[in-house]
Amino acid sequence: MHTVTQPMEASSQEEQEGSAAGAARPRARVAVAGATGYTGQELLRLLSRHAAVTLTAAMSSGQAGGAARRLPALARLWDGEIAPLSRETLVRDADVVFLALPDAAAAELAPALVEAGVRVIDLSGAFRLRDAAARARWYPETHRLPAGVAYGLTEREREAVAAARLVANPGCYPTSALLAIAPLADAGLLAAGSDIVVDAKSGVSGAGKTPSERTHFSEVHGSLSAYGVFNHRHGAEIEQGLGREVTFTPHLLPIDRGILSTIYVRVAPGTTDDALAAAYERAYRDAAFVRVVGAALPEIKHVAHTNFCDIGWRVDPSGRVILVSVIDNLVKGASGQAVQNLNVMLGIDERTGLL
Amino acid sequence: MHTVTQPMEASSQEEQEGSAAGAARPRARVAVAGATGYTGQELLRLLSRHAAVTLTAAMSSGQAGGAARRLPALARLWDGEIAPLSRETLVRDADVVFLALPDAAAAELAPALVEAGVRVIDLSGAFRLRDAAARARWYPETHRLPAGVAYGLTEREREAVAAARLVANPGCYPTSALLAIAPLADAGLLAAGSDIVVDAKSGVSGAGKTPSERTHFSEVHGSLSAYGVFNHRHGAEIEQGLGREVTFTPHLLPIDRGILSTIYVRVAPGTTDDALAAAYERAYRDAAFVRVVGAALPEIKHVAHTNFCDIGWRVDPSGRVILVSVIDNLVKGASGQAVQNLNVMLGIDERTGLL
Amino acid sequence: MHTVTQPMEASSQEEQEGSAAGAARPRARVAVAGATGYTGQELLRLLSRHAAVTLTAAMSSGQAGGAARRLPALARLWDGEIAPLSRETLVRDADVVFLALPDAAAAELAPALVEAGVRVIDLSGAFRLRDAAARARWYPETHRLPAGVAYGLTEREREAVAAARLVANPGCYPTSALLAIAPLADAGLLAAGSDIVVDAKSGVSGAGKTPSERTHFSEVHGSLSAYGVFNHRHGAEIEQGLGREVTFTPHLLPIDRGILSTIYVRVAPGTTDDALAAAYERAYRDAAFVRVVGAALPEIKHVAHTNFCDIGWRVDPSGRVILVSVIDNLVKGASGQAVQNLNVMLGIDERTGLL
Amino acid sequence: MHTVTQPMEASSQEEQEGSAAGAARPRARVAVAGATGYTGQELLRLLSRHAAVTLTAAMSSGQAGGAARRLPALARLWDGEIAPLSRETLVRDADVVFLALPDAAAAELAPALVEAGVRVIDLSGAFRLRDAAARARWYPETHRLPAGVAYGLTEREREAVAAARLVANPGCYPTSALLAIAPLADAGLLAAGSDIVVDAKSGVSGAGKTPSERTHFSEVHGSLSAYGVFNHRHGAEIEQGLGREVTFTPHLLPIDRGILSTIYVRVAPGTTDDALAAAYERAYRDAAFVRVVGAALPEIKHVAHTNFCDIGWRVDPSGRVILVSVIDNLVKGASGQAVQNLNVMLGIDERTGLL
Repeated sequence: MHTVTQPMEASSQEEQEGSAAGAARPRARVAVAGATGYTGQELLRLLSRHAAVTLTAAMSSGQAGGAARRLPALARLWDGEIAPLSRETLVRDADVVFLALPDAAAAELAPALVEAGVRVIDLSGAFRLRDAAARARWYPETHRLPAGVAYGLTEREREAVAAARLVANPGCYPTSALLAIAPLADAGLLAAGSDIVVDAKSGVSGAGKTPSERTHFSEVHGSLSAYGVFNHRHGAEIEQGLGREVTFTPHLLPIDRGILSTIYVRVAPGTTDDALAAAYERAYRDAAFVRVVGAALPEIKHVAHTNFCDIGWRVDPSGRVILVSVIDNLVKGASGQAVQNLNVMLGIDERTGLL
Repeated sequence: MHTVTQPMEASSQEEQEGSAAGAARPRARVAVAGATGYTGQELLRLLSRHAAVTLTAAMSSGQAGGAARRLPALARLWDGEIAPLSRETLVRDADVVFLALPDAAAAELAPALVEAGVRVIDLSGAFRLRDAAARARWYPETHRLPAGVAYGLTEREREAVAAARLVANPGCYPTSALLAIAPLADAGLLAAGSDIVVDAKSGVSGAGKTPSERTHFSEVHGSLSAYGVFNHRHGAEIEQGLGREVTFTPHLLPIDRGILSTIYVRVAPGTTDDALAAAYERAYRDAAFVRVVGAALPEIKHVAHTNFCDIGWRVDPSGRVILVSVIDNLVKGASGQAVQNLNVMLGIDERTGLL
Repeated sequence: MHTVTQPMEASSQEEQEGSAAGAARPRARVAVAGATGYTGQELLRLLSRHAAVTLTAAMSSGQAGGAARRLPALARLWDGEIAPLSRETLVRDADVVFLALPDAAAAELAPALVEAGVRVIDLSGAFRLRDAAARARWYPETHRLPAGVAYGLTEREREAVAAARLVANPGCYPTSALLAIAPLADAGLLAAGSDIVVDAKSGVSGAGKTPSERTHFSEVHGSLSAYGVFNHRHGAEIEQGLGREVTFTPHLLPIDRGILSTIYVRVAPGTTDDALAAAYERAYRDAAFVRVVGAALPEIKHVAHTNFCDIGWRVDPSGRVILVSVIDNLVKGASGQAVQNLNVMLGIDERTGLL
Repeated sequence: MHTVTQPMEASSQEEQEGSAAGAARPRARVAVAGATGYTGQELLRLLSRHAAVTLTAAMSSGQAGGAARRLPALARLWDGEIAPLSRETLVRDADVVFLALPDAAAAELAPALVEAGVRVIDLSGAFRLRDAAARARWYPETHRLPAGVAYGLTEREREAVAAARLVANPGCYPTSALLAIAPLADAGLLAAGSDIVVDAKSGVSGAGKTPSERTHFSEVHGSLSAYGVFNHRHGAEIEQGLGREVTFTPHLLPIDRGILSTIYVRVAPGTTDDALAAAYERAYRDAAFVRVVGAALPEIKHVAHTNFCDIGWRVDPSGRVILVSVIDNLVKGASGQAVQNLNVMLGIDERTGLL
């Protein structure tokens, strides 16, 4: 007696969920351009089990063709083929396209897709900075900023994302930093003129899949290093989000995935723990993916392989505040938040495919 | 505009899936005894999103009471409370109970539950060995073997599991070894009288959550060690599964989760790669969670956090065969296979809650 | 033909070095109390090859007796026996005693040894804080502060160490932080009233050898966590060293050994990189174990298993300075610095036994 | 008062040791060709503190010129410059040259050096295999085998090494396997016709410093993989050493350095543990760097950063034997054994510079 007779047939669990989630609504057609990198593979994993979409194409600019067997970890989860990059196919077969490409490729492809009527969720940095001067410095490949761009920090930009033609999915470090700091800024708690320090530590997958000395196992294992000091484009993105100067130092951790940001700010002396808690409660009362943990400081382990951002803090009587914010850089810091933005764009439950 | 207004409300995605998967069928009531260890937490994670069950209780023998906040990684996924262990509650509130307890506790509790009419899936070793002498040596705490025990290596015991009152969930090492070797034995390919060597390497979570010198980070990191040489009860379990002597050496890997078994057997000289492939095809044609990868040898990374067992091999003209089999020890090697067995017991799609 | 006929004989390389280093000078007799922890073992490793000392005793308070085979990594390097802790033996057989004991045990034993005429290098925290109130808060076990105590941050306290009866060997975090910040303070470069933030990350060996949930491999691997926020005694030690408030946050890294401290200070706007370089040059011109690397920021990998402290920095036009300081917590952060202090106490080349 | 006044001056500790170790003997002049890879850097570290040699040149074929600051971990230990590769300089300035080059480069350079009267210790595989057919298969770049080649497994080839013009330093896996198996073969204990299985696990530094997908941190961390099954040239080297077939499977461990080989052999039923111990005692009575640990199985941690090979075993009544052998692949498996061979070639204490 077998309960599983045809593992690959159409009436799988996934299909059933789909019909449940949107009986009257047809599935959205989505495609991934840049499917073989770490964020691309994570997108395939998430989208292949997403109840409201059909994954119509996965493409790679680097490898023309090649079967999905090059992604052995995805066998049985998604058995489609990785095709060469084709703008025509994307326009024809997809309602929403995820771009997990290098900045320059995204800067060129995204406007064309938008103009052809396809909605785009771009995981590169090409469209994150609104200020032209900042963009010219950090993303000189971005020559055009199409109309309808939203910055996709979902918890803070739901309405803009819902209406967007092009969602600039945030950087991993800014996601972790802004979700922790912005509620205090909104509540007017941050002391004016005080320093804001973001000391961030990331797993190696954040550096991408291309082999280099920096990502060689023997260089990273048993070590820790700072990089990009006073010179990292995610610093500009964090400053854009807060509207003030931030000192940002990223570090390369000997782990695969996850970011922990330790953030130093000042509030008025005597500000209570309750006042901070109230600010976060106001910000994230309805947020499915932000877990406010207060004095029980979060750890990367708690959020690995999830779309959660966990935020904790401690305050001392003199007004020093230490925030600790953790995410999985490939999920909430990239592909998970991209799917969360997709859900907002489609007007469906934000958690679909993410729990 | 918010698409998520009440993150915890009843009409969640999970509920929708549930109603889809079994419109006419009421959800089975399941409980976990031993919910705070690594396998227990993994069970909570899997069961909390399982479309066909309601998790009615999670208990811990160690910690009387205590709120779920002691499992911060599970917040939003499962926010129930960990209760003290209570046989009465289990009998009253559960149709199926998962035991993730020490051997002695399981040996005592399981028969009582079965006699009270509750079906049990036991993740301890207490009921895995059928031979009384072997059991007396390796599991002396097991005084009674209730009727209706099945050995829960799902792919090979589906009918027995479907009918069982008590499923003895296999050990992690035996799962990895038996799924790889048994198809060759079934096909009559193994050379009689030749040695079978299972050189197995496991992540540290397999050693359980209790702190010890052996699980101290500084003892494991950057190292590797063999243990239990000629003296590990999983060796007896593998030999029971194959009906012949096996040389089994486990090693402690500096990773959290995952097992890779390198297995050395002999077949008749000249046996082809195709003959081996045919044996695996016959065994796993309908198996949702075994991925036969042949000469593309599998890696732990491919199966981490999944219920898959990936099996590859190489054969040389003289009949030497090297098999490589990988699983996640906490999923296919413990909690995932337990849920797979639950699905078989309930007569539903074996993949429910596992993809 | 064998060049090695009697590996353990007296005419070993070590002996030869010894006679070279101090023909006329008899070897100092040294002993280690607390020899089985991580710092104790590192002491044995360093002292067993030290050309100017004879290791007369190694003791453990925990394990009465037990042969050196419990330290298999030290076989052939040091094959002596670990004896039960005995104050009488220490007084009789040692000129200098290293204490690698818990704070309370050190607080009791050290004064007695000093009074008996034995010089002591204490690796616990018991005698590090000069201020009685601070000591009462962080080290309440320390009832007496003997005369002749020196704080053993070698590069800054050579004269005091040379004359000391009792050297309080610094904490690992303070060693890393103070060596980096103090030269800027000495040079008058630190902006008055500005915040000093020390964001420090340490390997797990810093937490000691006693197994606990916090040091369990599966809790640490693939993760990162902050701890002791606003509440770590090493913060008090750093503040003592600088004479001003410091915000100190330690983190637990998934590595065995090493500390990287990222330090945020402010100097006057326009302060040049050269001005900072001059301050470090002044401080460490003659320091064998501080490597000033400037803009080439140091990594833990560069100092692992060495007694070096590498210090780098970046400054921006507005006066923000980011310092990066790395040490091996078991060497320069504990046992190596203790041997360095021994060398200063004996009046011999500071590098003896450490290169 | 400073005890260290001129850290870099000529009368350093190292010099003192040198004069002690060989008052009448001039230091040998040694050079390293291929100084920037992992084995090359380890050679520099060992030779820079070696009491009987002067390091006259360090060269790199890849990077023409470049100062030693590209090796920040070696600052203060060795501050010389990495020069472009120059055969003329090697011939002029060195008595013994270490080659840590790719096979093809070593195959070409070594014979020329030998003919010019320079002794060579080659860490590549180019000259390890004596059989021409095997060499043609595995090292086709090796066109000439100069006279005076010795296989540098020091403990077994001391006389040949002492007299050699060219030492072929063994592979890391063969070092670990042969030191464990050969004593049993020598003693006639191995059962004729039985299988010998070497299941070996290595840290990533064994794969060299060139970045590749295989050495990318994210591919290795948290994983384990087998490679080179039935197809690794170290298998041929092990078979050469034993004169019989061996089944050899290497694996890539998520650690930086270290090899553990688990070895399965058969002896006559009833062979005692004492008989095995006697074989090892006979083989390694005078061996400074082999620690025979018997039933206390060794771990990689015990030998990391040392030149030791630790060997343990278990035997069962039926004659099954499991050997466990550990080394540091960069030390005893490469650079340490090369220095050990140098010492034998120079006729000095084999341990010089290695303890």
